[in-house]
Amino acid sequence: MSAKVSALQAARASYSPKLPHVLLAVDQTIELGAPTAPPTHAEDIAKRFPETFGQPVATVRAGDLAGRQARPLKVGVVLSGGQAPGGHNVIAGLFDALKAVHPDSQLFGFLKGPGGVIKGKYTELTAESILPFRNTGGFSMIMSGRDKIEKPDDLEACRKNFEAMGLDGLAVVGGDDSNTNAAVLAEYLKAKGCKTVVVGVPKTIDGDMKNEQIETSFGFDTACKVYSELIGNIARDATSAVKYWHFIRLMGRAASHVTLECALQTQPNLALISEQVEADGKTLSDVVDMIVEAVVARANAGRHYGILLLPEGIIEFMPDLKKLIRELQDILHSNEKYVNGLPNHGERVQYVMGQLPADSAKVYGGLPEGVQAVLLTCDSHGNIPLSQVETERLLMDLAGDKIRLLEEQRGAKYKFAPLGHFLGYEGRCAAPTNFDADYCYSLGYTAALFVRDGLTGYTVHVRNLMAPAAEWQPGGTPVTMMLNMEQRKGKPTPVIKKTLVDLAGKPLAQYLANAAEWSINDCFVQPGPIQYFGPSEVCDQPTETLRLEST
Amino acid sequence: MSAKVSALQAARASYSPKLPHVLLAVDQTIELGAPTAPPTHAEDIAKRFPETFGQPVATVRAGDLAGRQARPLKVGVVLSGGQAPGGHNVIAGLFDALKAVHPDSQLFGFLKGPGGVIKGKYTELTAESILPFRNTGGFSMIMSGRDKIEKPDDLEACRKNFEAMGLDGLAVVGGDDSNTNAAVLAEYLKAKGCKTVVVGVPKTIDGDMKNEQIETSFGFDTACKVYSELIGNIARDATSAVKYWHFIRLMGRAASHVTLECALQTQPNLALISEQVEADGKTLSDVVDMIVEAVVARANAGRHYGILLLPEGIIEFMPDLKKLIRELQDILHSNEKYVNGLPNHGERVQYVMGQLPADSAKVYGGLPEGVQAVLLTCDSHGNIPLSQVETERLLMDLAGDKIRLLEEQRGAKYKFAPLGHFLGYEGRCAAPTNFDADYCYSLGYTAALFVRDGLTGYTVHVRNLMAPAAEWQPGGTPVTMMLNMEQRKGKPTPVIKKTLVDLAGKPLAQYLANAAEWSINDCFVQPGPIQYFGPSEVCDQPTETLRLEST
Repeated sequence: MSAKVSALQAARASYSPKLPHVLLAVDQTIELGAPTAPPTHAEDIAKRFPETFGQPVATVRAGDLAGRQARPLKVGVVLSGGQAPGGHNVIAGLFDALKAVHPDSQLFGFLKGPGGVIKGKYTELTAESILPFRNTGGFSMIMSGRDKIEKPDDLEACRKNFEAMGLDGLAVVGGDDSNTNAAVLAEYLKAKGCKTVVVGVPKTIDGDMKNEQIETSFGFDTACKVYSELIGNIARDATSAVKYWHFIRLMGRAASHVTLECALQTQPNLALISEQVEADGKTLSDVVDMIVEAVVARANAGRHYGILLLPEGIIEFMPDLKKLIRELQDILHSNEKYVNGLPNHGERVQYVMGQLPADSAKVYGGLPEGVQAVLLTCDSHGNIPLSQVETERLLMDLAGDKIRLLEEQRGAKYKFAPLGHFLGYEGRCAAPTNFDADYCYSLGYTAALFVRDGLTGYTVHVRNLMAPAAEWQPGGTPVTMMLNMEQRKGKPTPVIKKTLVDLAGKPLAQYLANAAEWSINDCFVQPGPIQYFGPSEVCDQPTETLRLEST
Repeated sequence: MSAKVSALQAARASYSPKLPHVLLAVDQTIELGAPTAPPTHAEDIAKRFPETFGQPVATVRAGDLAGRQARPLKVGVVLSGGQAPGGHNVIAGLFDALKAVHPDSQLFGFLKGPGGVIKGKYTELTAESILPFRNTGGFSMIMSGRDKIEKPDDLEACRKNFEAMGLDGLAVVGGDDSNTNAAVLAEYLKAKGCKTVVVGVPKTIDGDMKNEQIETSFGFDTACKVYSELIGNIARDATSAVKYWHFIRLMGRAASHVTLECALQTQPNLALISEQVEADGKTLSDVVDMIVEAVVARANAGRHYGILLLPEGIIEFMPDLKKLIRELQDILHSNEKYVNGLPNHGERVQYVMGQLPADSAKVYGGLPEGVQAVLLTCDSHGNIPLSQVETERLLMDLAGDKIRLLEEQRGAKYKFAPLGHFLGYEGRCAAPTNFDADYCYSLGYTAALFVRDGLTGYTVHVRNLMAPAAEWQPGGTPVTMMLNMEQRKGKPTPVIKKTLVDLAGKPLAQYLANAAEWSINDCFVQPGPIQYFGPSEVCDQPTETLRLEST
């Protein structure tokens, strides 16, 4: 492939990710600890995972080659769900480790996500085909997809494909759901006597796949740095033009780690944290009041501009909207055809308002027309497509209404001119930072060792991440240890619990300790673009979240 | 000020911009050439600028201190219009040069743009106050504004302020309009016997203030690199998710230099260039057809995703929309109150359609409701606020309609799923690249020498920009040489002509030579984030536009 690349791509192509000294040793052994169990529902989970329940935590140690009978391995890899910076380096690390185990080892990339595993669509990955993707962003090497390997037919289809290919293992690169599914597949294969082991790799820019064992998911570092670069630039625009309030929506449906991390990096006037809004029981109107208060306070200090960060999922954390959404969903489940057969927006609103309880009708009636319309549609899974709600514009609109009313009542001029932004696709496929490039390469390398040793149903990890890479500690956590029973589609289902922002955690405490000061004053910080070649304090800084959680 | 700064801000604070060797000499002289004249309307312009017409091009040469009677200078600086990366370095260069001329020189920053000059609102800039802003983005040091110094009262107010301050000169950092106004002020002051000279500095991220003398305006380099970083990331997302077409709107009301430069850096599937659309007389429907053709061709090749770039101003270059906008403007001028007093959107549309000629009524009727609504509003200057038209969404909507019709007719599935983006505020206040940091510092340094030598009515320039900074050539162009008579508010007015994309120029030729290949195939390039510390080919690359125009 002689595709044109940029000067930076060319320079980064030759970057060698830093490896922990454990992985630089001539060989590695995997040390197994005591049996494990999940914190809750152990019995239920044990019943569902008879083959893989209770496995020990595994730790990679430096070893020597004495007595090692090396044989070539055949391994598959699949990228699952939303892209995260560093995915290509997971594959590169996996490949290099497999070749170190035995030069005749082979790596196969399943195409377009888990659907490719079910359908048996794959390509062999070679040194040549991987080379142009080292240290690059995105999942374009083998693409990604959002299919799930869950149904019995799909599990069986996978087994047949693996048997036909003679696969020793499959590495599933994905978030909490994909790692859960990896465990289900591992269990299934083991029960069927299939030799293929399944190992997960913790990926998500949302940062919500972390726990006692997993310090951070890969991609979070890079994505937050790209968003923080842009937020810093917009903040500088705010203090230069001195006339706009910028409402910036960030990724994070379920958890607000991205918003919190970006807030710690850039010091905005207000950062809305979904978990806190929910804990405080703040309604939409309460949240709008918080915003209005900040805008008015700054206007009174002569600052008719500001920066507000919000996570995309926040509307689902406000109790009144959450209730409204659930009720609308029920109305649509029974009457969607009728509702959307009504001739115009006014009639649809009128009908729905009649069906809703009074409190919800009032909330719905107070929403802008565009949001009302989205809340009356269903996606192909029968869910209201909440990601289509431009929450930043909703809040701009409602805050604007309240501020105009206050101006009228008080004879004041707050000069509130808001602008909305959504930062999402700009960061998901950025080229990885040094941190993510190194971290992902080590994760992939570790996954290969787990396949070599026949360990299945594990999510690999690399710990001690605040130390230099040489001191990082690779290992793996049995997925069953991380499972939790949750209601999914009305049934109790074992899933890896998403880790939300800890209300008692240090990152949130750090924000809250500064929130009043950052709100009224201009304390904006410009993190600037990600650097690869400069001084270490510029190029190798971890996220604030990781730093604070490690202290 | 002990404000918290990021690690990168701290590292960049100590960067010393590279200076041309001419400016590193112990002293400089300014060499004057032959008298000049504008290419057209020389007589008319001479009549309007009796004091400053015909001045020679000026070139800065290395000199020695022999015979130089140094005296302290008092100089003002004002930032005018939209922010551009590097503005703070213009001020830093100006300050350092003034101190080199005489340590007792003083620099005053007028606040919030030209309005601050009229009102006499300023602050003295000192080594300490400038320090935290060196090599930073934005105009936050003294802020910016969009007022214009044009009216006789305002000119006189400026003169009085300058006399009271004892100013030797004023540096106006701005685009074509601000530099025109600087020339008007220079002429006025000279005619009144005021000693204050006025010197312009060519700024705009749009890249449309350039000509035979000015190779590029500052800020274009940085802004295009930030946008290209993000476009490259989004393109990588497109080839990873393989299901979305991304329509990306970029800055550029009047000229498409930003879109063209970003296209050369990132190689998208389609880049719409306003100047070419206008030259080809392409209507809205024609443009939509171009898009549909690209989408269908890629879908037929199995690629249901892509990247399209468009400049924000493109709708004003399509003949049918241009005509429609003019006609709507006329209708609103006479009947705005009536139109917006009508009870709902439907009635407003009905009325306006009745007033429009048939061809325009058809175009208007085919627009989405939101765009129809914007086209019926007026801003505070009585103009339709075209910047509120989200052109990327308009084109997504219309292309989607045509593609669905084709699918129906052909029984085909093109799977067109578009996503819209607007990249604007993310780049205007980015920290300057090495290029813009160096270039701006030299421009500011040069402006100080022009004040020292009493030269007025000039726009400073730094040329030979493709060579290393040491070989750059500073100088200045008399503004009258760049003037052109244009109709403004119904009156012939002398203005600096905006330089649009040259239809016969090398940058456009380079794009067109590759357009077919880039359209059907995936040739995307990832420029990545701006680098400050790496190899020179990564950190010091000029724009493709500058490179191609210099060959």
